[in-house]
Amino acid sequence: MSGEGGAAAGGYTGTERILALSDGVFAVAITLLVLDLLPAFGAAARPPALGAFLHDKLASYLSYVLSFLTIGVIWTNHHQMFTQIKRSNHVFLLLNIVFLLWVAVLPFPAALLARYLGQNGPDHKDVVATFPAGHPLFESNAAMAIYAGTYVVGSVLFNAVWWYGIRNRRLMGDDTDHAAVRRTTWSYYVGPAAYVLDLILSLFSVGAGLGLFLALAIFYALAPLPSMNRLVAPKRARI
Amino acid sequence: MSGEGGAAAGGYTGTERILALSDGVFAVAITLLVLDLLPAFGAAARPPALGAFLHDKLASYLSYVLSFLTIGVIWTNHHQMFTQIKRSNHVFLLLNIVFLLWVAVLPFPAALLARYLGQNGPDHKDVVATFPAGHPLFESNAAMAIYAGTYVVGSVLFNAVWWYGIRNRRLMGDDTDHAAVRRTTWSYYVGPAAYVLDLILSLFSVGAGLGLFLALAIFYALAPLPSMNRLVAPKRARI
Amino acid sequence: MSGEGGAAAGGYTGTERILALSDGVFAVAITLLVLDLLPAFGAAARPPALGAFLHDKLASYLSYVLSFLTIGVIWTNHHQMFTQIKRSNHVFLLLNIVFLLWVAVLPFPAALLARYLGQNGPDHKDVVATFPAGHPLFESNAAMAIYAGTYVVGSVLFNAVWWYGIRNRRLMGDDTDHAAVRRTTWSYYVGPAAYVLDLILSLFSVGAGLGLFLALAIFYALAPLPSMNRLVAPKRARI
Amino acid sequence: MSGEGGAAAGGYTGTERILALSDGVFAVAITLLVLDLLPAFGAAARPPALGAFLHDKLASYLSYVLSFLTIGVIWTNHHQMFTQIKRSNHVFLLLNIVFLLWVAVLPFPAALLARYLGQNGPDHKDVVATFPAGHPLFESNAAMAIYAGTYVVGSVLFNAVWWYGIRNRRLMGDDTDHAAVRRTTWSYYVGPAAYVLDLILSLFSVGAGLGLFLALAIFYALAPLPSMNRLVAPKRARI
Repeated sequence: MSGEGGAAAGGYTGTERILALSDGVFAVAITLLVLDLLPAFGAAARPPALGAFLHDKLASYLSYVLSFLTIGVIWTNHHQMFTQIKRSNHVFLLLNIVFLLWVAVLPFPAALLARYLGQNGPDHKDVVATFPAGHPLFESNAAMAIYAGTYVVGSVLFNAVWWYGIRNRRLMGDDTDHAAVRRTTWSYYVGPAAYVLDLILSLFSVGAGLGLFLALAIFYALAPLPSMNRLVAPKRARI
Repeated sequence: MSGEGGAAAGGYTGTERILALSDGVFAVAITLLVLDLLPAFGAAARPPALGAFLHDKLASYLSYVLSFLTIGVIWTNHHQMFTQIKRSNHVFLLLNIVFLLWVAVLPFPAALLARYLGQNGPDHKDVVATFPAGHPLFESNAAMAIYAGTYVVGSVLFNAVWWYGIRNRRLMGDDTDHAAVRRTTWSYYVGPAAYVLDLILSLFSVGAGLGLFLALAIFYALAPLPSMNRLVAPKRARI
Repeated sequence: MSGEGGAAAGGYTGTERILALSDGVFAVAITLLVLDLLPAFGAAARPPALGAFLHDKLASYLSYVLSFLTIGVIWTNHHQMFTQIKRSNHVFLLLNIVFLLWVAVLPFPAALLARYLGQNGPDHKDVVATFPAGHPLFESNAAMAIYAGTYVVGSVLFNAVWWYGIRNRRLMGDDTDHAAVRRTTWSYYVGPAAYVLDLILSLFSVGAGLGLFLALAIFYALAPLPSMNRLVAPKRARI
Repeated sequence: MSGEGGAAAGGYTGTERILALSDGVFAVAITLLVLDLLPAFGAAARPPALGAFLHDKLASYLSYVLSFLTIGVIWTNHHQMFTQIKRSNHVFLLLNIVFLLWVAVLPFPAALLARYLGQNGPDHKDVVATFPAGHPLFESNAAMAIYAGTYVVGSVLFNAVWWYGIRNRRLMGDDTDHAAVRRTTWSYYVGPAAYVLDLILSLFSVGAGLGLFLALAIFYALAPLPSMNRLVAPKRARI
């Protein structure tokens, strides 16, 4: 963009194509969540009764909203990360691809949660395993724990991308606000610990697991507010 | 882009990544509409008779065209919005993500409409509910009402994004045409009211619901014409 | 990009978001073609014999390659169009959306062709209709004719977008090469006529229909060669 | 971008729209890999036991990770290619589209591998063919060989795009590092030979085929490290 051709490929700067692929994977993965809501393709000529069809999908709606909002918040944090990281090297590309591998798989735990959320209680006791103390693990608990566990992995990967980025000073912008970086780093530490806690809670109570998960989405949605508004909207931006 | 690195991340300005994610979600959601037309994956070696297959899909074609055009028009209005809004903050990002949650779900009501459009009349009386006055609610009416109701929600969300954008003056461009903004704001008010009316109509007549819906798509396609041509195509643009 | 904020929204110039949506829809539609090759989701624990599975998909491979190359060539022509058209107005946006409605539907005729290509001959005489002269219309002929007919519609839409663009001089760049525009316009006229011919041929011979279709893809791939290399790769470009 | 309108269309330079389509196809193809993990759409009200469902998908997880990482690495190499190639002509566009045809098909061999990986051994001897020396070809070997064979084709196509790019000097940047180009060219030669070897190994041992495939992904992930860090992260980049 700046006439220094060395780092710019076809109008892309060092981070532009990472962002193009990342935004593409985020956009596709987040939109594929809707597949779980759709009626079966090639269904019989006579569809099931509308009321029953909609009612059977209740867990799918919950999973869709929870997953979409969480992935959306992760995307804003990824967006936030790239207000600080302004160049790329090969290791950073690779780390980001491993992170995207995780983003793209998210429709899978979302579909599991949707499918197995109601699978416990007195009616259908689908016990996956029994804990030493005799506590039964229902399929709904297992699905919620897998869902939370996926985000344990994701928050570790997110931290890894961020850590590599801020350790490697050449990837940061020259005008880095180091205090903001430190605050951001601390807020990211919350993720792995909180999702591990959520995983453990989920084994005992699906409701508690879902509740904490939602609370974390809200925390991550609102946490960057103080610093980010300043970072993203400078007093005077010429476009 | 302008050499002021503070707000620009990897060549993205404040609104560029929102637009990248938004255009991605719009592009994927609008293209996933075709899934409802496709033959079942992994079908039997012997497909159904071609004529019957095509005839069974008539409601799907209607739903595809109606949904694609409407989402396309919403995209042009989103495009129009970002000729006025030129910076982003975190709340605006979050509002936009909630709006995209709605965009991504649109293949779902489209598939419902396609599947249940023909489900009433003397042949198959699939009554979902009965109104106090004894009027039966057919599945086709319910599906059309859900379809219209989805757009009630969407037009409210669209207005919320727009309201936040124009209230927060720092998000607007410095050369904002305030008269054009006011005209645009008024045209957006039409949406929620019109879609509520369409929802109510749909309960009594699928045809009336479809007709008003189509009329609204045409209205929103043509409404920005006078002001927008001026805004988008300046007399002399250097690229 | 140029500091003239009036036409640029969030770093997007007049045609940038059209191109972002268009490239997104092209990328998704072209990639969804693979769905027809995939084994059924949630298949039985025991998949069919590999050899038989691969053999049953022969028509799908043909349809995939033919459709992908043709859509790819259309994309290069769309790309070529935007080396001449440099600004956008609302009508142009709408025309482009109708064109994209057509792009997004292309996996549908591709799947029909794949499914019904082998449905004729002495073994299975699936006659859709009988012509006045007693000639039977096989399902394979009908599928090929639908496939060609889709491209009749598409080439008309493509011409409509192009016609609007070149008629409306304010959408063209200031340095337009009018001779190149005229040559391009003439080459686009070939499309509708050729695809109508292909449709008619397909009714009598699937092989002739496929052959002409492939020849047209090659013609459109190579036609822009003389003028385009000059347009796209200027003697000296600073990036 | 630079004010020289001749080569720039709607803010796109010569390679920008290729990159937009390419990144789109990469993003969609890589994200569609998750489809093979999802439960069947429109499944019965009662899903299968969670433990059994997850266990049946083991080969799918392996195929997902292997395919995602490999496609990701190919994307970084495509990214790397475009740090050297800075302009486009029509032939280059067409070659790139043929390459993208190959990228978009990758979910197909990935799904085959996932479905047929366990199909051999004493339990179910699914012999596809028998070699002259009497060695039986199991379905798992055939699926792994098809998987490897796909990448033989892809590495040849990748080399073709690269060869055309570096032969046609006008496509290269003015500040090309010719020594780096030669090193890159040599590293690309490894691909076709190594994947042919992998194909042959796969016919005799699925494990050996998988192992070499993984080793190649790691080799291609790490090979550009020495030269690329220098190319992508210049000492001082103005954004």
